[in-house]
Amino acid sequence: MSEEVGYLGPPGTFGEQGALLYLRETRLDAQLHPLDSHVEVVRAVDAGSIAYGVVAVENALGGAVPEALDAILAANNVSFCAELTLPVEHNLIAAPATKFEDVEIVMSHPQALAQCREYLERHLPSARLEAALSTASAVEYAVASPGVAGIGSRRAAEVYGGAILAASIQDEDQDETRFIVLARHDTPPTGDDKTSIAFVVDHDRPGTLIAALGELSNRGLNMTHIQLRPSRRGLGLYVFLIDFQGHRMDGGVAEALAALKTQTSFLRVLGSYPRFKDA
Amino acid sequence: MSEEVGYLGPPGTFGEQGALLYLRETRLDAQLHPLDSHVEVVRAVDAGSIAYGVVAVENALGGAVPEALDAILAANNVSFCAELTLPVEHNLIAAPATKFEDVEIVMSHPQALAQCREYLERHLPSARLEAALSTASAVEYAVASPGVAGIGSRRAAEVYGGAILAASIQDEDQDETRFIVLARHDTPPTGDDKTSIAFVVDHDRPGTLIAALGELSNRGLNMTHIQLRPSRRGLGLYVFLIDFQGHRMDGGVAEALAALKTQTSFLRVLGSYPRFKDA
Repeated sequence: MSEEVGYLGPPGTFGEQGALLYLRETRLDAQLHPLDSHVEVVRAVDAGSIAYGVVAVENALGGAVPEALDAILAANNVSFCAELTLPVEHNLIAAPATKFEDVEIVMSHPQALAQCREYLERHLPSARLEAALSTASAVEYAVASPGVAGIGSRRAAEVYGGAILAASIQDEDQDETRFIVLARHDTPPTGDDKTSIAFVVDHDRPGTLIAALGELSNRGLNMTHIQLRPSRRGLGLYVFLIDFQGHRMDGGVAEALAALKTQTSFLRVLGSYPRFKDA
Repeated sequence: MSEEVGYLGPPGTFGEQGALLYLRETRLDAQLHPLDSHVEVVRAVDAGSIAYGVVAVENALGGAVPEALDAILAANNVSFCAELTLPVEHNLIAAPATKFEDVEIVMSHPQALAQCREYLERHLPSARLEAALSTASAVEYAVASPGVAGIGSRRAAEVYGGAILAASIQDEDQDETRFIVLARHDTPPTGDDKTSIAFVVDHDRPGTLIAALGELSNRGLNMTHIQLRPSRRGLGLYVFLIDFQGHRMDGGVAEALAALKTQTSFLRVLGSYPRFKDA
């Protein structure tokens, strides 16, 4: 029985592109398994019903790890085992043989529509914008509907048999989406690794954050990513997610983590994994 | 001629609720002016075509200041002049006389649907979910469409003549949305103020961030909010948005800002304004 890799479906989402990239990178013999939410991806990995789960963490359509973070922190058996990045590319997709001037409605996830706003104002000023639950479902609908174009990934065009009317229509170039791969274990040291941690800081004691970050910087551990989200306990209390260079089994990192433990009210090592290198 | 307060429309959005709260709090004689995006709100304030603009910054449906931040940083005449918070409340809204069991389709902004996922799974497991560009447009559509309920604010039910089938259906209670009011000036000291700043930190020099935050904490200036977003220049470079207690004209704050100027590659004081107190 081959293993399964879960992602936020339906097929054709950027999440599926991330999952496919992971299979390519690792040459893993696994099947893709679309799920309905990032929380379900986390819970399925935690329960062991899928081996891997791919969630988007930066520039993600519709939330991603901020949404999934509570589920990750509540889970017992979920670690970060890999990271991936993909360039953000939105494409205007419609049924084959559709002409640009036939497009009356442009449909996508509201955030994808927002990311293509300037393009749409310039090139399709009279098109009506409609919302979809995902870029993939927008493309699926568009391909079956005359006069409708969807905004989505190349993969969505493939999956639903659409034609690309215009490629790379996002207003900002050089944006990337970063994905984290979840599993029940992290990854052994490779010599070029990153570690992700989560900790809680009380805003009334700003010194806590400084002291915590100092444990990393004083040991020359470069932070590569910082993310935070309000704690569920109300505005002003934050969960910090920090990624830094090094593996949790490296001496300096182990020392920093031990020191951090004494500096924070909550600390969780989410995992160590190889730094992603573009192929 | 009365002044105008811009917000992300259409009428009935949480943005309109924020704008109405601002009018109530300040007893300002001003008219509400719905706009199509947060970027438009920022640009209209900058150009002086509206006096105030209200943008959501935390727990916001559809992006908010992260989306508007580049526009704010590119603007010449935009300051933060007030802050507001409102509890997040999603309601199930339909045409009057609609019964719960008549609901076949539930429509809203995808993020609002996600925030009510558990409720919907428990109480409307067979309803089909459909996306809308905003909670307000979902409610407008729902009220005109038999069998359809929209998820949105009480204000949207009022504006579009809908009835509330179920109130407060969000999965998480105690979430709040925070709004910032933009104007061409900030607000003079009141004795209980906050200041917002933006600065850029290079991830390859973690000491920079520590040093910058230390300028605040060493002077006892409590940070009340920290937000960051990737710089447009690529992953790994961040724009920090920090709010802390105190007014930029207070001695200690002025000193900290002068010190921060020397510690960062880019610093912008976005403004000082009274701390929001619930009425």
